[in-house]
Amino acid sequence: MSKGVTPQTKNYSAWYTDIVTKAELADYGPVKGTMVIRPYGFSLWELIKNSFDDMIKETGHVNAYFPLFIPKSFLAKEAEHVEGFAKECAIVTHTRLKSDSEEGITLDPDSKLEEEVIVRPTSETVIWSMYKKWIQSYRDLPLLINQWANVVRWEMRTRLFLRTTEFLWQEGHTAHATADEAQEETLLILELYRRLDEEVLAMPVYVGLKSESEKFAGADLTYCIEAMMGDKRALQAGTSHNLGQNFARAFGVTFQNKDNNEEMVYATSWGVSTRLVGGVIMTHGDDKGLQLPPKIAPYQVVMVPIFRDDDDKKNIKDYVIEILFKMKKKGVRIHEDWRKGSPGFKFNEWEMKGVPLRIEVGPKDIKDEQFVIVRRDNSEKKFVSKELIIETVLSLLDDIQNNMFNKAKSFQTENTYTVSTYEEFKDILSNKGGFIKCGWDGTSETEAAIKKETKATIRVIPIDENPKGLNCIYSGRAAKHEVIFAKAY
Amino acid sequence: MSKGVTPQTKNYSAWYTDIVTKAELADYGPVKGTMVIRPYGFSLWELIKNSFDDMIKETGHVNAYFPLFIPKSFLAKEAEHVEGFAKECAIVTHTRLKSDSEEGITLDPDSKLEEEVIVRPTSETVIWSMYKKWIQSYRDLPLLINQWANVVRWEMRTRLFLRTTEFLWQEGHTAHATADEAQEETLLILELYRRLDEEVLAMPVYVGLKSESEKFAGADLTYCIEAMMGDKRALQAGTSHNLGQNFARAFGVTFQNKDNNEEMVYATSWGVSTRLVGGVIMTHGDDKGLQLPPKIAPYQVVMVPIFRDDDDKKNIKDYVIEILFKMKKKGVRIHEDWRKGSPGFKFNEWEMKGVPLRIEVGPKDIKDEQFVIVRRDNSEKKFVSKELIIETVLSLLDDIQNNMFNKAKSFQTENTYTVSTYEEFKDILSNKGGFIKCGWDGTSETEAAIKKETKATIRVIPIDENPKGLNCIYSGRAAKHEVIFAKAY
Repeated sequence: MSKGVTPQTKNYSAWYTDIVTKAELADYGPVKGTMVIRPYGFSLWELIKNSFDDMIKETGHVNAYFPLFIPKSFLAKEAEHVEGFAKECAIVTHTRLKSDSEEGITLDPDSKLEEEVIVRPTSETVIWSMYKKWIQSYRDLPLLINQWANVVRWEMRTRLFLRTTEFLWQEGHTAHATADEAQEETLLILELYRRLDEEVLAMPVYVGLKSESEKFAGADLTYCIEAMMGDKRALQAGTSHNLGQNFARAFGVTFQNKDNNEEMVYATSWGVSTRLVGGVIMTHGDDKGLQLPPKIAPYQVVMVPIFRDDDDKKNIKDYVIEILFKMKKKGVRIHEDWRKGSPGFKFNEWEMKGVPLRIEVGPKDIKDEQFVIVRRDNSEKKFVSKELIIETVLSLLDDIQNNMFNKAKSFQTENTYTVSTYEEFKDILSNKGGFIKCGWDGTSETEAAIKKETKATIRVIPIDENPKGLNCIYSGRAAKHEVIFAKAY
Repeated sequence: MSKGVTPQTKNYSAWYTDIVTKAELADYGPVKGTMVIRPYGFSLWELIKNSFDDMIKETGHVNAYFPLFIPKSFLAKEAEHVEGFAKECAIVTHTRLKSDSEEGITLDPDSKLEEEVIVRPTSETVIWSMYKKWIQSYRDLPLLINQWANVVRWEMRTRLFLRTTEFLWQEGHTAHATADEAQEETLLILELYRRLDEEVLAMPVYVGLKSESEKFAGADLTYCIEAMMGDKRALQAGTSHNLGQNFARAFGVTFQNKDNNEEMVYATSWGVSTRLVGGVIMTHGDDKGLQLPPKIAPYQVVMVPIFRDDDDKKNIKDYVIEILFKMKKKGVRIHEDWRKGSPGFKFNEWEMKGVPLRIEVGPKDIKDEQFVIVRRDNSEKKFVSKELIIETVLSLLDDIQNNMFNKAKSFQTENTYTVSTYEEFKDILSNKGGFIKCGWDGTSETEAAIKKETKATIRVIPIDENPKGLNCIYSGRAAKHEVIFAKAY
């Protein structure tokens, strides 16, 4: 265990914050609720971002950029939407500061804006105000636009990556000529999120629908992806909304269809954010620190040379130079740690930072024409001959990626319970924690009552639900849905 | 000339706006002064961004992300800095909206912030407040951090890409143990900007120092890159600041040096923005529309099939499929335009959008086993045999890139005048336009007087200036510097 990291079992939340700060992923910004993403954390986010950006571009989406500022009146155009965001938005009211002999520097009252401006909490409104200009005919559809941007939702209780006033995300906003197409798009993106989470982040997920009370403010349907964290709580790791014609109606966006009739446009929106970094930390981290899946690890391999003097150092450099060059050419992200300092200290540091593979090499290894390799995921250590090192590293990286997913998948399976009585339900939540699969009568009253008593919410109505023959866990009535309940972040 | 584009000679500024909107690069956002970057314009920006991102990563820089919001008090910590930005910043004062039966939706007065928050106009202050936490010893230096971000400077008179309330940029912020190192970094970045502008954007530039009155608010020295637009006015296309110890002093950032003494940290900052897109438009555009250098063209090649019916279409598809596949594999960005509509209409559209190369192919070309190729830069049209098409395209793209640079370079040279009398100086500015190289006595009084009379400012003190023997163009005194004057954007 690295110095100064609170063990998970002692205090999971303190463990999380320790990891984020000690692995130098992020730090607190000066304005309450804001976050600084440090270079190591940002590099991780860039790799996640690039993976998803490739996926959406392959499926015909394009990137654009819409303004940060939204007229106050826009937010109010969609009734549910304003309800959802009014209580947590940053409002710009003035545009100049002036010197003041008493207070130092103050607002210039003469710079007050006629209409206040909202810092975007999400961009549906500003984007649909533009779509109104851009869409006239079915020939202009579909529009498959995404943006990578910062958004702001004012937060009082900060948790780095999980809940911050400003966060980074992508938000897709598509416009379609038919309801079917919009639904297809919603589900396509849901599948891309599943692949991103499972195949790239090695984070197994449940996939399905949100209940009415948990859906996006302004959506007809919200699909989501839910992952299980190390403390058995749920993290929403991607949402894809079918917005129907709600925003087209709010902004008057119609088009001439093929039959020359005027029709309202259909919409979707979907997003994942820097929250995913929090998900990676809590899915894979342990008491030694972070554990990063190779596909998104800023350094997939760290090479720690073990030397006593400059001669040793030179010999090691000669020994590794060609191998490292070849490995880099194969696309492996390698970091060489030539700093002064004890190997033990370095091992701990790179374990803390979650680097999947460590290669050690010292004078003895040179003599034996070998390397020492240590895996972060299972601590396995082995000696590998110089000839085999490159192919071994490549195959181990694959292996670690798969092993991390499988481990997390087992954990998720072991901690997902199918229950049929409310007693069991409460017992699991208070004594073990985990996801609970059960019947639900489909009413918001039942949902609210369960939430009030247990703090658990319906995370997802799985896409492959089978409510037949089930009864509601709370009311005992015939179940309308089979759902997964859990406490959530 | 494409329909509806104002000719450059008639009204350059109207021409510019026509190009931006008709080539679908950008549009006006709903809040005054804001801009929407449309997919085609954003793809252009992404290519510029990726080029520069590669350059800075190769030279050891890393990306991070700092908060959008800055406490009001921070801005005031560096005296010149607050002077520079106080009059154009967006100020957040409240965090909640509420319903109001009369006004609809209003500010919730209970949500007033204790200290107002500024939307970053630039991030020196917030970054140096973090560097204070991260830097203790010389071992923590240098810090070579960059961020890609949006910034806000409130603008009343909007010009898309050139002057908007919000724009996208990169801002590098480095911290160093010595003054020499900071100066080296400042110049390294200046050289990277020169390479970006000249080698990637095909935009020739003058490189040098800003005068005192034009330098960045808070810098010791501002180096800059100035390009000549098609109307012979100057555009600043990159600045690199040596900030000395100004921000370290303002935020109390010291470090333990190798001799165990406490010392103030040295800083640089540097940025280029979406303004560069405006620079590309005005360096290369003509009355037919945009002209994009191949290295940053979203589509380097557009293939326009010429067909009458579905049979033609199928034959063309069969004819081109393998060639297009191979070309894409070689990294060529190709767009295939299979829409209905006349070839002439499509030709105009892709010329307007500045695609460097057009390939035409119809039934006759299939019979003759050839393609028709038309260059956007010089309208040259030629027939190329099927076997040679791939290598021809590759070599033409290189050729176009070079030709565009050379053309712009000649234009810049032809319109840069070395003058020795103030009469000539004024004559050129009022009758021909262009850059004027001349002596300057180094006083801000002279600079201000010239600006007042002619609207020209000192764009740059070239790095290779040779003031020996020159007299000041205005005062007649011995010149302290050889400078370039011009009217600027």
